[in-house]
Amino acid sequence: MPNAVLLLSGGLDSTTLLADALHEGFDVHAMSFRYGQRHSTEIDAARRVAAAYGVRDHVIVDIDLRVFGASALTSDIDVPKDRDMSDAGDTTIPITYVPARNTIFLSFALAWAEVLGAGDIFIGVNALDYSGYPDCRPEYIAAYERMANLATRGGVEDTNRIHIRTPLIDLTKAQIIRRGLDLGVDYSITQSCYDPSESGAACGHCDACQLRLKGFAEAGTSDPAPYISG
Amino acid sequence: MPNAVLLLSGGLDSTTLLADALHEGFDVHAMSFRYGQRHSTEIDAARRVAAAYGVRDHVIVDIDLRVFGASALTSDIDVPKDRDMSDAGDTTIPITYVPARNTIFLSFALAWAEVLGAGDIFIGVNALDYSGYPDCRPEYIAAYERMANLATRGGVEDTNRIHIRTPLIDLTKAQIIRRGLDLGVDYSITQSCYDPSESGAACGHCDACQLRLKGFAEAGTSDPAPYISG
Repeated sequence: MPNAVLLLSGGLDSTTLLADALHEGFDVHAMSFRYGQRHSTEIDAARRVAAAYGVRDHVIVDIDLRVFGASALTSDIDVPKDRDMSDAGDTTIPITYVPARNTIFLSFALAWAEVLGAGDIFIGVNALDYSGYPDCRPEYIAAYERMANLATRGGVEDTNRIHIRTPLIDLTKAQIIRRGLDLGVDYSITQSCYDPSESGAACGHCDACQLRLKGFAEAGTSDPAPYISG
Repeated sequence: MPNAVLLLSGGLDSTTLLADALHEGFDVHAMSFRYGQRHSTEIDAARRVAAAYGVRDHVIVDIDLRVFGASALTSDIDVPKDRDMSDAGDTTIPITYVPARNTIFLSFALAWAEVLGAGDIFIGVNALDYSGYPDCRPEYIAAYERMANLATRGGVEDTNRIHIRTPLIDLTKAQIIRRGLDLGVDYSITQSCYDPSESGAACGHCDACQLRLKGFAEAGTSDPAPYISG
């Protein structure tokens, strides 16, 4: 089975991504980040998901994005609640955007891929429900892939071309959920919330929760994950 | 003065780069990395250089590349000594190559630039004396810049285009040294060695030392930095 590196947050998207990569026959090396996020219970979710799928290995990389400040996900700014999400997918960049986050994550994945001799890097970005993040767009991913092939041994020696795989990029949240359910994903162990309780229960009101709940509703089913009551 | 982020290792190249950026009128925010390198005394050199120039601020980012193994700079593999450097610049990638290192470094610099609203990122890569590293080539830098402008707020809102500045890329080591001396650089406080002593004295025999000593000889002067005697 070919090696692949997969960015696993333990959320709905990356868990579906993992099920998809395994279904495609990849030997998955999962990578998660502790980056000063306020919702650090997502690391617990990533561990649960990696264990449930028995991935080849799972690395948790410590990086400190707080040194740069400026995001509600990594600082003391309040996570926005009950925002009107009917405009999701427009070009307004929300306060929860973490500067260059996917670029940093992909760069660590690229280093690991080069060491493993893996040609495939999976990332669960989504251009439709992307909440306005610039680094979730197809043109960004294409530019990253091009750069990655110039950055590495494989690009010089033409031995191991890097492919950035984004099988979820054109799907709605409901389509992602349907694909995951077809692949047998247990969404009760996943976590998407930007502002969960200490036990990992979702708030139900941040952007991520709203998109997730809307996705389950549109998929015609309910979310089995725990929510803070009320 | 416009803000710029500058990757500062404390070596000959990045110190010349710093002098150059200040000479160009940038307000420099310096960034160094503790990445598990065996030559961690280079952090001391970076601090000395940043202090000597009184840069606006200097951030040292901790990242652990050792988790990926596979380089003589971050593991227990011996640093090659007294290699024939007459073929420097060919496409053989040496064992001291750290996978995706510049890509990771630039990605942190990009995050900081975005937070600062800086449009310029300085990196002291050099394509002539680059020791065969793929991520020191002009085509790599151009691809990185293109990706960076798609990754960030500025790229979406067209408010702050990112320029990756590489003023040393076409210079020989001797030309870099001459430029630095013209700008008054004190090379005695810099450190380039891959395998220095605990006090930071250079070994004189690794690839970096050989290129540096050859550069000073070609520039018609001697290296004021300390070397391990013998």
